[in-house]
Amino acid sequence: MSRERAPSDPRDARLQALERIERHKQRKVRLRDERITLAHGAGGKATQTLVEAVFLEAFRNPLLEKLEDQAVFETKGQRLAFTTDGYVVSPLFFPGGDIGDLAVNGTVNDLAVSGARPLYLSAGFILEEGFAVEDLRRIAASMARAAAAAGVSIVAGDTKVVERGKGDGCFITTAGVGVLEREDTLGAERARPGDVVLVSGAVAEHGVTILLARGHLEIEADLASDTAPLHGLVATLLDAAPGEVRCLRDATRGGVATVLNEIAAAAGTGIALREADIPVREPVRAACELLGIDPLHMANEGRLVAVVAPEAAERALGALRSHPLGAEASLCGRVTAEPEGLVLLETHFGGQRVLDVLIGDPLPRIC
Amino acid sequence: MSRERAPSDPRDARLQALERIERHKQRKVRLRDERITLAHGAGGKATQTLVEAVFLEAFRNPLLEKLEDQAVFETKGQRLAFTTDGYVVSPLFFPGGDIGDLAVNGTVNDLAVSGARPLYLSAGFILEEGFAVEDLRRIAASMARAAAAAGVSIVAGDTKVVERGKGDGCFITTAGVGVLEREDTLGAERARPGDVVLVSGAVAEHGVTILLARGHLEIEADLASDTAPLHGLVATLLDAAPGEVRCLRDATRGGVATVLNEIAAAAGTGIALREADIPVREPVRAACELLGIDPLHMANEGRLVAVVAPEAAERALGALRSHPLGAEASLCGRVTAEPEGLVLLETHFGGQRVLDVLIGDPLPRIC
Repeated sequence: MSRERAPSDPRDARLQALERIERHKQRKVRLRDERITLAHGAGGKATQTLVEAVFLEAFRNPLLEKLEDQAVFETKGQRLAFTTDGYVVSPLFFPGGDIGDLAVNGTVNDLAVSGARPLYLSAGFILEEGFAVEDLRRIAASMARAAAAAGVSIVAGDTKVVERGKGDGCFITTAGVGVLEREDTLGAERARPGDVVLVSGAVAEHGVTILLARGHLEIEADLASDTAPLHGLVATLLDAAPGEVRCLRDATRGGVATVLNEIAAAAGTGIALREADIPVREPVRAACELLGIDPLHMANEGRLVAVVAPEAAERALGALRSHPLGAEASLCGRVTAEPEGLVLLETHFGGQRVLDVLIGDPLPRIC
Repeated sequence: MSRERAPSDPRDARLQALERIERHKQRKVRLRDERITLAHGAGGKATQTLVEAVFLEAFRNPLLEKLEDQAVFETKGQRLAFTTDGYVVSPLFFPGGDIGDLAVNGTVNDLAVSGARPLYLSAGFILEEGFAVEDLRRIAASMARAAAAAGVSIVAGDTKVVERGKGDGCFITTAGVGVLEREDTLGAERARPGDVVLVSGAVAEHGVTILLARGHLEIEADLASDTAPLHGLVATLLDAAPGEVRCLRDATRGGVATVLNEIAAAAGTGIALREADIPVREPVRAACELLGIDPLHMANEGRLVAVVAPEAAERALGALRSHPLGAEASLCGRVTAEPEGLVLLETHFGGQRVLDVLIGDPLPRIC
């Protein structure tokens, strides 16, 4: 694993942030690694570098350059959203869900955070020879339930099988198409100083649940993945604050910290976050402390981060809290003019520290 | 590998074909295997059974039930096509192409055979820890070239990494969206007795190229994969015979034989095929004989099978031959009223035999 150290000196952090803004503008980045490491799949800094240096460099086009969770395109006056995500979570089954509902909800959410109504999903399976058909049935049933709950149909699919030892049971790649029926245009670059940052519920539960499900830790906790389809919550929010929501993200790999850093870089703003206002359940906090991982770097699969105009703050918070998936929503930060591209965390102890994107890979195959 | 034997008695074949028609009507099929085998990924009979018994059973909806290469849906009066395919080909690089252009062309073709103009692609990568970044760059460059050639943009992507020994270098799952701008409605069920069957060029070259690239055979041949985007060829054909093309398929896994069996089952017709009229290059024929595999069961990645109204036969053939990708197109068969659901091959020797779908898996990871 190629771990880069987080900067201890704030000036280094500042330099890195400026580099990140510059990189975001120019989208010209160099990848120094010669081999793929687990960190390249962790959704943090190494993933960003790989995506920008290899894929963006090769495929360069205006839709991809936005590096949002989905591409929004227009055909015959109709705006559509299109997205894909691969799922390699291990174990395949865990408290609160399995790879099947994860694969449906994840793609539904990538569509939903553009403001789109998710319509159709495709599912490509890469199975390992010897995989139990009974497990596949269980995964398919779970996908079907998740699709029904999200109001989408799985309309296209594909199945490939690789030899024993060349895969790991079941990988799923879903893609999705949705339709944008609202006037709202959402985008990380639309955040501006004064906007408020909302999070829809307690963070890090999916990540910690997966780690505990692997049984490597001597912790027993009554935890379940937060995997859920967010399109209903998003609709409730957009109804309450039309034209006032700047951007939405579901905070998956890399966690809330990575999402907020991406927003700060895209908007060229700072973000001031209050640790005390970010809901974290006690067993999650305990597990994260034991692991030495910030819960803000942990993956969520049903948590929305919203940046909203200040005049809509209370309405937006109220709307989120009115929905079962947003009952614990919290106003946890503000967009600031300075320092550009940096997320500053006001800690429980009253101090302040730079909150960086996820570095390295403490959590392989979390989704 | 769970190989089922092809029936030696024509009456058995007839029974199986009737079962297949019945199954196609009812879409109610039982999967007896307890474990996934390579045959489930080969695109033949085992794949059909798995897809119908597990995925169709769980996800059942009118779009998926058609089991075409793509789903066609309508939103705001606009018809769109949506498809996905996974690529696990081994080796990743082979004469004539690599997993990258295969992944682009394959999805472009699945859109094209619905009559759609391919617009946007997504690409999900599942990489194995340790994979060479240089190889990934080469694959991305090849995808970019293929996308440019097909006139599509890769607008969404995702990267996951699995531990060494849990993957095999690089798997890619692409999805695609296209727009149907023509009046034509294509579908396997539209074939009717008297229609002609056309194939756009020499068959089995992709499959044999991959097998030779593995180096398991002591054959040297100047062969290359036929991987190519078929949207231009399809447009040329539809322009020449508007409203007269019944259905199109690209004959990938399972080969021309499997595609024709699917058409016969969906249409409830027979198909009479003349072996002598199916172009097969000499080294391909030699390799297939050595392997004991029918070239009609071998994968193609740039070969179109078209069923066309009899009055358009000459025009359609001329149109195909006018295009560089269809220069060797051939009229190789006819749709017949009887025997329902069966493909009968008139052999080189003047005999007649039932041409079944691909059984078992002689060709793992061909795409």
